[in-house]
Amino acid sequence: MKNFPIAKSKRVRSTPFSERIESQGVKAYTVYNHMLLPTFFTSLEEEYNHLKEHVQLWDVSVQREIEISGKDSSELVQLMTCRDLSKAKPGICYYSPLVDLYGGLINDPLIYKLESNIWRVCIADSDVLLFAKGIAEARNLNVKIFEAKIDTLAVQGPKSLKLMEKIFGSKIVDLKFFRYDFFEFKNNKYLISRSGYSKQGGYEIHIDNLKAGLELYDYFFKAGNEFNLKPGAPNLIERIEGGLLSYGNDMDIGDNPFECGFDKYVNLESDIIFLGKENLKKIKKEGIKKKLMGVKIEGKSVNLTKGLPILDLKSNEIGELRSAAYSPKFNKIVGIAMVKKDYCNIEQKFKIELENTLVSGEICNLPI
Amino acid sequence: MKNFPIAKSKRVRSTPFSERIESQGVKAYTVYNHMLLPTFFTSLEEEYNHLKEHVQLWDVSVQREIEISGKDSSELVQLMTCRDLSKAKPGICYYSPLVDLYGGLINDPLIYKLESNIWRVCIADSDVLLFAKGIAEARNLNVKIFEAKIDTLAVQGPKSLKLMEKIFGSKIVDLKFFRYDFFEFKNNKYLISRSGYSKQGGYEIHIDNLKAGLELYDYFFKAGNEFNLKPGAPNLIERIEGGLLSYGNDMDIGDNPFECGFDKYVNLESDIIFLGKENLKKIKKEGIKKKLMGVKIEGKSVNLTKGLPILDLKSNEIGELRSAAYSPKFNKIVGIAMVKKDYCNIEQKFKIELENTLVSGEICNLPI
Repeated sequence: MKNFPIAKSKRVRSTPFSERIESQGVKAYTVYNHMLLPTFFTSLEEEYNHLKEHVQLWDVSVQREIEISGKDSSELVQLMTCRDLSKAKPGICYYSPLVDLYGGLINDPLIYKLESNIWRVCIADSDVLLFAKGIAEARNLNVKIFEAKIDTLAVQGPKSLKLMEKIFGSKIVDLKFFRYDFFEFKNNKYLISRSGYSKQGGYEIHIDNLKAGLELYDYFFKAGNEFNLKPGAPNLIERIEGGLLSYGNDMDIGDNPFECGFDKYVNLESDIIFLGKENLKKIKKEGIKKKLMGVKIEGKSVNLTKGLPILDLKSNEIGELRSAAYSPKFNKIVGIAMVKKDYCNIEQKFKIELENTLVSGEICNLPI
Repeated sequence: MKNFPIAKSKRVRSTPFSERIESQGVKAYTVYNHMLLPTFFTSLEEEYNHLKEHVQLWDVSVQREIEISGKDSSELVQLMTCRDLSKAKPGICYYSPLVDLYGGLINDPLIYKLESNIWRVCIADSDVLLFAKGIAEARNLNVKIFEAKIDTLAVQGPKSLKLMEKIFGSKIVDLKFFRYDFFEFKNNKYLISRSGYSKQGGYEIHIDNLKAGLELYDYFFKAGNEFNLKPGAPNLIERIEGGLLSYGNDMDIGDNPFECGFDKYVNLESDIIFLGKENLKKIKKEGIKKKLMGVKIEGKSVNLTKGLPILDLKSNEIGELRSAAYSPKFNKIVGIAMVKKDYCNIEQKFKIELENTLVSGEICNLPI
């Protein structure tokens, strides 16, 4: 596949760390929330292996944080998500599908309640700020909504605990999954969550002091040597195998939370008020017609630039392949597909045309 | 400046014409509305010269069209814009700043009223769909909102009239600026507007039949030979000189329409209802504190990746450079900057640091 350079501009923002990752040899970018996201430094496969064994530092500043504060902030945040946040507490990261009136997915952020009337919504790739403003301004809610000046570094991989302990002290090892707390380094306090877009364990450091954050970035590569720390990025192979979904790739506004396997984050029995509640009740009653599933496909390489139809053996369309990468672990292409309900059976065989060749595959569970 | 390839995926959508423009030698992409936008094929300068003399075909499918229909569609469209659309008629393209409650710019689309209850909002780079849905769903408006399956080709340059006449017939030459109508080619009807993101004149063809659109694309390059038609893209040099603003580069939610010179599209005297009305009245009364201006800077090349501070001769910050390109016409760098009100004087001198060198420049009008 031919490479095309990305034209940079103010509109497609660089991050505070772009200069550093470029000097470290970043090989490609994608754009996410109007900002540059590195995709790899050596090769997807090399970094997949390294991520599963060692530790990586990722510039995930693209994960923008929408701050919603004010008297009606809890009402607004709840209006947007089907997850019951009425008992939300500071210190916990809530994975919360945002849905529209029809139950269609708007985004799938982690939501943090910082204080009783201050929330942070750490977003995937869509302008949640505009959805929140639309609702708040149409209803005259008493809230302040803005994109916080926060840039995030992720520390991912099995050695992330040891590395983070070395820098932030032993207390950080006790932080549980999807919890956050504040930790100091050189007189600067950082909000750090036990989270990240890999299944290898790790942390996300939410940086609001840029100068300190840049020094921290450089310090990581001094302190990380003994753990074989390398710069990295969310890894396409690892996240597909791990069943970590990507908004815009695997699901969008045409899909509802049940179709994406988010059932446990849809709280229809509670008395919370959110926009899509009635329609999600209806969808639940009637049952879904399609579902995200894993797939394994015979093949050595793939580069998706759009969804591709999945066919049964009679060439009827039974689904759409939405993400895919070659997996060295399975020696096959692995992927995530939206599949018609009747065909969501493990080992269901299918055909798919990849680069003008018809190849065979089968449905499997997520994670793969 | 080092080049970095763009990692394609379903999330960063290709357009129906991407394969064609790649075979025609597109050299770089940017991402706009989650989709690939070509930026040039040969060089910015070569295409600037060609655009001003001949005619180009641009894949501007990224200019997505949000369709808003239903009983309350006019109310919703008006709620979002400070331009009075109460007397809007089919056949006219309305350049309409969208603003939030505080008068901050959300987007600057062309709006088409197709029928009494069907509107199309042709958007710049922000998720207007989410803003519209937020308002409509919070207010229980009776509307349907979706991204239309429309991809747009722009025909731009002084020879665009002759070329379009050859393909669509003589009636198209009579279409006035910012008007649209329907025209046929090979039994397919196209909505065509006299519009486009250049000052060289031209048309935009809004394609809803993909197969026909691809055939039309190929036909253009047969029919266009005699007019020296070439593939092109919105040209950074030409659009800066022409004072055509770019949402996300030149202005965003932190700027209001008065600061961007959109005064004539802010209708505060009419009795229309839109979200930002009271705050824009207040801003108008108090006066603005900054304004978008043209700039000319001594220099031969520039690649902005973020806004850069503009300094007065005592090194006080007096503004921010937001777009810039080398102009062969002026033999200088030309740009668009947000400048503090007191310094918005023609020939006001300033200094700016470009690639570690302090250079001098002066303020000028837009268009430059």
